[in-house]
Amino acid sequence: MKDITGIIQCPVAVDAGDCVTLAHSEGTRATRDLITNRILNRFANPHVTGTPDAACLSLSNNQIAFTTDSFVVSPLFFPGGDIGSLAVYGTVNDLAVAGAVPRWLSLSLIIEEGVPLATLDEILESIVAATDRCNISVVTGDTKVVPRGAADGVFINTTGIGEFLTTPPPGPESIRCGDVLLVSGPIGSHGLAVLAAREELALEPAPRSDSAPLHEVVAELKEQAGESIRAMRDATRGGVSAVLHEWSADCGLTMTLEESAIPVNDEVRGACELLGIDPLHSANEGTMLIAVDPSAEEQTLAALRSVPQTALAAKIGTVQSAGIAAVTIQRLLGSEQPVDEPTGALLPRIC
Amino acid sequence: MKDITGIIQCPVAVDAGDCVTLAHSEGTRATRDLITNRILNRFANPHVTGTPDAACLSLSNNQIAFTTDSFVVSPLFFPGGDIGSLAVYGTVNDLAVAGAVPRWLSLSLIIEEGVPLATLDEILESIVAATDRCNISVVTGDTKVVPRGAADGVFINTTGIGEFLTTPPPGPESIRCGDVLLVSGPIGSHGLAVLAAREELALEPAPRSDSAPLHEVVAELKEQAGESIRAMRDATRGGVSAVLHEWSADCGLTMTLEESAIPVNDEVRGACELLGIDPLHSANEGTMLIAVDPSAEEQTLAALRSVPQTALAAKIGTVQSAGIAAVTIQRLLGSEQPVDEPTGALLPRIC
Repeated sequence: MKDITGIIQCPVAVDAGDCVTLAHSEGTRATRDLITNRILNRFANPHVTGTPDAACLSLSNNQIAFTTDSFVVSPLFFPGGDIGSLAVYGTVNDLAVAGAVPRWLSLSLIIEEGVPLATLDEILESIVAATDRCNISVVTGDTKVVPRGAADGVFINTTGIGEFLTTPPPGPESIRCGDVLLVSGPIGSHGLAVLAAREELALEPAPRSDSAPLHEVVAELKEQAGESIRAMRDATRGGVSAVLHEWSADCGLTMTLEESAIPVNDEVRGACELLGIDPLHSANEGTMLIAVDPSAEEQTLAALRSVPQTALAAKIGTVQSAGIAAVTIQRLLGSEQPVDEPTGALLPRIC
Repeated sequence: MKDITGIIQCPVAVDAGDCVTLAHSEGTRATRDLITNRILNRFANPHVTGTPDAACLSLSNNQIAFTTDSFVVSPLFFPGGDIGSLAVYGTVNDLAVAGAVPRWLSLSLIIEEGVPLATLDEILESIVAATDRCNISVVTGDTKVVPRGAADGVFINTTGIGEFLTTPPPGPESIRCGDVLLVSGPIGSHGLAVLAAREELALEPAPRSDSAPLHEVVAELKEQAGESIRAMRDATRGGVSAVLHEWSADCGLTMTLEESAIPVNDEVRGACELLGIDPLHSANEGTMLIAVDPSAEEQTLAALRSVPQTALAAKIGTVQSAGIAAVTIQRLLGSEQPVDEPTGALLPRIC
């Protein structure tokens, strides 16, 4: 019953010297060569010296945010992104929406024997470009190689440290009746892009992932509407629906959406209709929800729209007293309906 | 060519409710149940509230150590330890030998569909016991479930933050001619224990892993011989040989060992002879090397031997001017010989 989707296997004709082998695994000279000449050389910075078991960091203050994510996305490359940039942006975004400035990253690779070194290089280059874009440094890491079949291609863990230079938003427990729900852009793109790539669906145009960092958008939001923001969250696994269900559980109120106001790209909408997927349940990797005091609705939307990446930000609903369900939606045709919390696996391995 | 060693498969008769399924994966209600009722409840502490994407931490100073490791050991349980405690001690030890006091841990799980929930519980309980023993808190985490065959049982990433409350040792670049090389206990146990368990070798008595935390030993060393210590390192992948080769590369000197002085347990020595493995190349998970100024040899050994865990600490060699090889050994019979740096895979998936 092995799911071979996305497994990278070396063509038989390829010399083993072009692939990762078990010789790269166990504290050997080959390991040191791989780490020194293929990984460390890409992440040179003042904190990375030798082959550090631990990086020594100097903080500018004593309040930090700490977050971790493992990435197991299949396939490794998809329209709009790849596992490398995704692993950087995912952790950067968790730090950013917590209200922290992303600073340092650890990078841990689990590589299946037989992955072409060219594939590894491509992923590493993507990680370098993504960390540059986020002004964040990889300062410590780990590399494990497992025998063929014991993993599927490449898994990446990134763990991040951010600094709290301003007071973070109070969080979803502080959400009140009348608060406004904003989304930073069109929803559901990432889940559909990965699904379409994995299943090789002949969609035209193919959905592209929204995979992107949100630290600049969050900085703008804090600058323009800091005091009025109750909560921010990037709507990753489980999509917008999962975040709103969590927020409802945290504040005890109903999140009410207006279907006509929810931005969805045409190609995502088309794919969702074809596949019977609700875009509210599909994952995002560069799109966030914001709950904000109603008095600050205009300035918060203006702040979002002032950044090109979130120019299509929209108000999608409001917070109301506890009603028929944790999350409801006013459909284009018909009355208010509950939005289910997804109960099973929609799209495994989308991040 | 799938290596099925160590894969945990649910017996067909077991109800799916007793196993991890893909429904636990994707931001669904099942995911929230798994995380809330099986993971978060075990790691309750003031820093873990709700289902945090990021933990907020207050440091007592501005200098921290940051380290990451992914654990892919097979089998998941072996004499003397298991993947859970190993994942805690491995990261704690990286922080400790860097000279930091271990404080916080992230915990990221990649679980193969079909792993029995009872197995997951056993691993989580082992993690809890290990963190208690190390006085360290798990404050943030991530859980991914991948389809059967896309991983092998359970992989764990732990990433740790430690605080520098005292000046760390200067490191291997500061090692000088005449320095003394100490080891905290018998070597090579972990690699042999895992190999014997995986290959079901009928060794009697079976080698037991030395998997254990070193933070208390390091605290004692810093207290008793802080100024005289040049470098400390836990001798994990690649064993004592790999660490000494790295130190030689860092300081440009030869590490010279005395074979008769190197402590090796009888069962490890027997297994090594049987299998043709040099204990210098076999991994340890709770045994460290210390390079120290010769004037502090006695007090450093006394400090090590004052802790029951490292009562068998020994002087195993000295540092000499660059000679015939990076690392040499005076064999019991015969003259000084070079110790090779392992070039290939001895024992994959030993941590």
